[in-house]
Amino acid sequence: MPKRVDHEERRRKIAEALWRIASERGLDGASLRDVAAEAGISLGQLQHYFSSKDEMLVFALDHISALAARRIGERVHALAETPAPRDILRESAVEMLPLDDSSRTGNLVQIAYFVRAVHDERLRRHAKEGIPALRGLFAHQIRDGIARGEVAADRDPDTEAMLLIALIDGLTNYTLLEVVSGAEALRLVDAHLEGLFTA
Amino acid sequence: MPKRVDHEERRRKIAEALWRIASERGLDGASLRDVAAEAGISLGQLQHYFSSKDEMLVFALDHISALAARRIGERVHALAETPAPRDILRESAVEMLPLDDSSRTGNLVQIAYFVRAVHDERLRRHAKEGIPALRGLFAHQIRDGIARGEVAADRDPDTEAMLLIALIDGLTNYTLLEVVSGAEALRLVDAHLEGLFTA
Repeated sequence: MPKRVDHEERRRKIAEALWRIASERGLDGASLRDVAAEAGISLGQLQHYFSSKDEMLVFALDHISALAARRIGERVHALAETPAPRDILRESAVEMLPLDDSSRTGNLVQIAYFVRAVHDERLRRHAKEGIPALRGLFAHQIRDGIARGEVAADRDPDTEAMLLIALIDGLTNYTLLEVVSGAEALRLVDAHLEGLFTA
Repeated sequence: MPKRVDHEERRRKIAEALWRIASERGLDGASLRDVAAEAGISLGQLQHYFSSKDEMLVFALDHISALAARRIGERVHALAETPAPRDILRESAVEMLPLDDSSRTGNLVQIAYFVRAVHDERLRRHAKEGIPALRGLFAHQIRDGIARGEVAADRDPDTEAMLLIALIDGLTNYTLLEVVSGAEALRLVDAHLEGLFTA
C-alpha cells in the first residue's frame, strides 16, 4: 500500500524550513532548492506545493499571522474574564515585537516579504488586506476604551489604531537592529499607551 | 597629460548608480559588477573605491543621510527666524517619509541596508550610531517644547523622541507597501504631534 502523504503537514514543514532559513541568514539568496533541502524533500516535491518563492513566502506569512493571532488570543484569554482594551492592545504588541525566538523569526519572514513586496504589486496585496484588518481590530479596542471612559472622547479610534501599528512596526525594526532592546521597545509601547489611555 | 580623476565625484556617481538600482528593482540580487555597469565604469575602477557591497551600501547610506539632513536644514530655514519645535519635527518627518522620488529612493536604500544589517553585526553599527544621534536631536526639540509650555512637563523628551522616530519608520514601511498613502502618513504624523504638543 503506498504511503499516504499528509499534505497539510508537508506544507507546514516547508514553511518551517523557510522560517529557519529566514531566521539564520535571510531569504534573499535562498532558492526553492535550498528550502527543499532544508525541509528534507526534493525540489520536485516542493514544487508540487509551491511553484514560486513568492507563493511560498505568502503561505509562510499567512501561517505566521495565524499562529500570532492564536498566541494573542491565548494571552488575552489568560488576562481576565473581560480584559481591558489597554491590556489587549499591550498583549498584541508583546506578541508582535521580536521579544522571543518565535516572533523574531516571524518578523524576519515578514521582512523578507516586505523587501520583495515593495517592488511587486501582486505581493503588496497581502499587506493591503492584512493591515486594515488589524487596524479594524485595534480601532475596536480603542472605541471600547472611549466607551469605558479610559480614552479621551476626541481621539479618533481609526487614527490611533494605525499610529499604534506603525509604532510597533518601527520598534520591531529598531529591535532587530539592536538600536533598542526588547525591554526598551516594550517600555516605549507602554509609554505610548499611557499617553492614549489618559482618562 | 593624464586626465585628473575627481574621486569625490566618482564616489558620488557610484552611490547614485546604487540608488537607481535600489529604487528600480532592489539591491538584493545586485552585484558589484551590476553597480559598476550602471555607473558606467569597470568593475576594477569600482573596486578602487569599494571592496564590498556592504562598504558601498554604508557609503551610500551616509551620503543619503547627509543629503536628508541638508534638506531638513533647508526646510527648517525656510520656516521662520526662530522656528517652533513642532514645526521642526514635522519638517523632519516630511523629509524622512517617502513622499517624493528622492526620499523614496533614500528609503529603499535604507531597506536594502536594513535586511543585511539584521544578519550582520558589523553593519548594525551604522544604525546603532545614527539613530541615537537623531534621537538626541528630536529630544532637544521636545525639551524646547516643554520649556515653551507647548508639551506637558511630564513627557519624557528622550522617550517621545524614540516614539516619533519609530512611528515615522513604521509609516515609511506602510507607505512603501501602499497600505497608506503619503498624504495619510503625514496626516498620521500630524495627529501624533497633536497628541504630543497639547499644552
